[in-house]
Amino acid sequence: MASIEDLQKKVKQLEEELEKSRQSGAVRTKISQMSSEVVDSNPYSRLMALKRMGIVDDYEKIRDYTVAVVGVGGVGSVAAEMLTRCGIGKLLLFDYDKVELANMNRLFYQPNQAGMSKVEAAEKTLREINPDVIFEIYNYNITTMDNFQHFMDRISHGGITDGKPVDLVLSCVDNFEARMTINTACNELGQSWIESGVSENAVSGHIQFIVPGDTSCFACAPPLVVATHTDEKTLKREGVCAASLPTTMAIVAGFLIQNTLKYLLKFGNVTYYLGYNALQDFFPMMAMKPNPECDDCNCRKQQEEFKKREALKPKPEVVEEVETAPLHDENPFEIEIVSETTEEELKQAEGEKPQLTEGVTVAYTKPAKSSTNDTSETVGDVSGQSLDDLMKQMQSL
Amino acid sequence: MASIEDLQKKVKQLEEELEKSRQSGAVRTKISQMSSEVVDSNPYSRLMALKRMGIVDDYEKIRDYTVAVVGVGGVGSVAAEMLTRCGIGKLLLFDYDKVELANMNRLFYQPNQAGMSKVEAAEKTLREINPDVIFEIYNYNITTMDNFQHFMDRISHGGITDGKPVDLVLSCVDNFEARMTINTACNELGQSWIESGVSENAVSGHIQFIVPGDTSCFACAPPLVVATHTDEKTLKREGVCAASLPTTMAIVAGFLIQNTLKYLLKFGNVTYYLGYNALQDFFPMMAMKPNPECDDCNCRKQQEEFKKREALKPKPEVVEEVETAPLHDENPFEIEIVSETTEEELKQAEGEKPQLTEGVTVAYTKPAKSSTNDTSETVGDVSGQSLDDLMKQMQSL
Repeated sequence: MASIEDLQKKVKQLEEELEKSRQSGAVRTKISQMSSEVVDSNPYSRLMALKRMGIVDDYEKIRDYTVAVVGVGGVGSVAAEMLTRCGIGKLLLFDYDKVELANMNRLFYQPNQAGMSKVEAAEKTLREINPDVIFEIYNYNITTMDNFQHFMDRISHGGITDGKPVDLVLSCVDNFEARMTINTACNELGQSWIESGVSENAVSGHIQFIVPGDTSCFACAPPLVVATHTDEKTLKREGVCAASLPTTMAIVAGFLIQNTLKYLLKFGNVTYYLGYNALQDFFPMMAMKPNPECDDCNCRKQQEEFKKREALKPKPEVVEEVETAPLHDENPFEIEIVSETTEEELKQAEGEKPQLTEGVTVAYTKPAKSSTNDTSETVGDVSGQSLDDLMKQMQSL
Repeated sequence: MASIEDLQKKVKQLEEELEKSRQSGAVRTKISQMSSEVVDSNPYSRLMALKRMGIVDDYEKIRDYTVAVVGVGGVGSVAAEMLTRCGIGKLLLFDYDKVELANMNRLFYQPNQAGMSKVEAAEKTLREINPDVIFEIYNYNITTMDNFQHFMDRISHGGITDGKPVDLVLSCVDNFEARMTINTACNELGQSWIESGVSENAVSGHIQFIVPGDTSCFACAPPLVVATHTDEKTLKREGVCAASLPTTMAIVAGFLIQNTLKYLLKFGNVTYYLGYNALQDFFPMMAMKPNPECDDCNCRKQQEEFKKREALKPKPEVVEEVETAPLHDENPFEIEIVSETTEEELKQAEGEKPQLTEGVTVAYTKPAKSSTNDTSETVGDVSGQSLDDLMKQMQSL
């Protein structure tokens, strides 16, 4: 039989071991100032080296920036991890999903996080990786009216400098309704954002940088399912799921954050649209001007304001204008952007074809007249209506 | 004062808590057969969906394959994680580095792993992510003579079917000596491999698929530092380190494993060379034939054997040959591959210029005559000498 002393010793030992075991997740202390010192213990040495290499003028400036990531699934979680490891100032994460074992074929989440909310699981991991980053997480669906108001508020006031807007919004969602909601918010706020997406068959993806008024918004040339007001949920079948690959998701996340870093830290060319076709290793690039007849009134308003700002700018003399977004003016492989919709669906939605760069073919046209009876309205569904109109409708119910 | 009973209760409680805390890393049980069932608990549902989407004929076959990853740093660790999440049969990991906080600007490793060997840390994390994968890890430098022999043995006998070679070797190392060592091994064994690399300024990278005898090997058109027999160590300066970004590393790892999946599971076009320039979002592609005067005698031997095999193949009738690796026959942006070496260095190493596709410019030429006094020899340094010759030299010392 053990003595009291032995037992007390044992208790003390176990308590120490437990403390150690629990602490094993959190080891790196906060670093008040980024240093270029080349020592094994400096998590920023390889990033600060971008200055000596002549790539970035002022890397430390990354700490002044705030990025909102909407959707922390296969693309968003990896994007958030990249920004965290780069030492971004502040991250806002939005998602309402739970981690499942079915997500384990993409990077980031671990099986032991199954059942946790994605934003909570992500914050825990990211804080352990870099305790210098400030996090704000929201476990809700941005497309409901209440949450949308809160979402708009955080985009316009959630910056690292209190009360300022975030510097960039990244769309990493997996459905059109959420994309249209982000589009609506960013058009109203004049907020720059980057949209991203991966195809259902897992072998292609894209990123698209959207500056309200300057570039095409998501509603300027909407996908067929949006243009025809089809309810996405009706397209999903029981027992059928989209394919996904960790490779395609990480490549799209890589393109997304590379473009984010180029935009925030001012190096290289910020790309307006970059596609990725994994089967052929084909990377289409283009720049799209906004549609003057865009369904979103705030997009049209931003276009007017953009024109006014441009007109006020001093005209550059002698200096020739340089195109920042290179256009593929050749299409040597004769690759076409092909719709996955049927001929019939296309005919229904057919309208005037826009003027396009040589070598680019349209996958859909703007519908001449809507032929659907669908009158359901969501936040993202802004056809001819302002958010105020919608709010009034809501209140009158 | 606590009673013996109280203390015993406390000990039992602490032991349980400790057990729970320690177990928190391992939750997912092994899965004997991959299933397509669409349930949240199935980690393979989104991968098996590649079959229904018409992308992959037989996804389950991935369990029959073995891949060796040499170097599990910024690219290799992410590549290994992608293969693990895809459910690869077996992984062999080679590295001799330790995890440091200075590695935290790339994906995969966590601060709490600082001090652990990279292969041990990687295996622990990867096993937790997917316990179905079989791992073999080697914490050694493959370029020393003893380790090289062992490395050759594992490449030729480490496959999931006992005694068979691995299916593919992935080079994710950060120096030319190790690349030349892998090249030497793969040329001798006739082993297909994919080389990868990221530039010192962190904003470009590439992958290159090498099939001994069929494509250019790493010695067929060696980088200047290799061609001039320069000791890499003399190029490194104290207190100076290469820059790196999690974005570029993950994109290169994504390209590497996408190509690996296309090769192993037979879908899409396997790419021979894919470059990535992050500043311009430019993606050069090419295919390189082997150099009949390659310094590596085993490369020349493999070329002869390849020709013999090709000659024995029945000639296809009527069917026109399709080029599997598309060539950029246009260079609309007039982008040149530019060397980072000085004019003087270039002049010293200048030789005949090879015949190249229109639009591609050489960064270096094969040196006309070696002008260096460096006579140091490593395993990777095979100029005119076979491995047997080197072994004999070693033994005579």
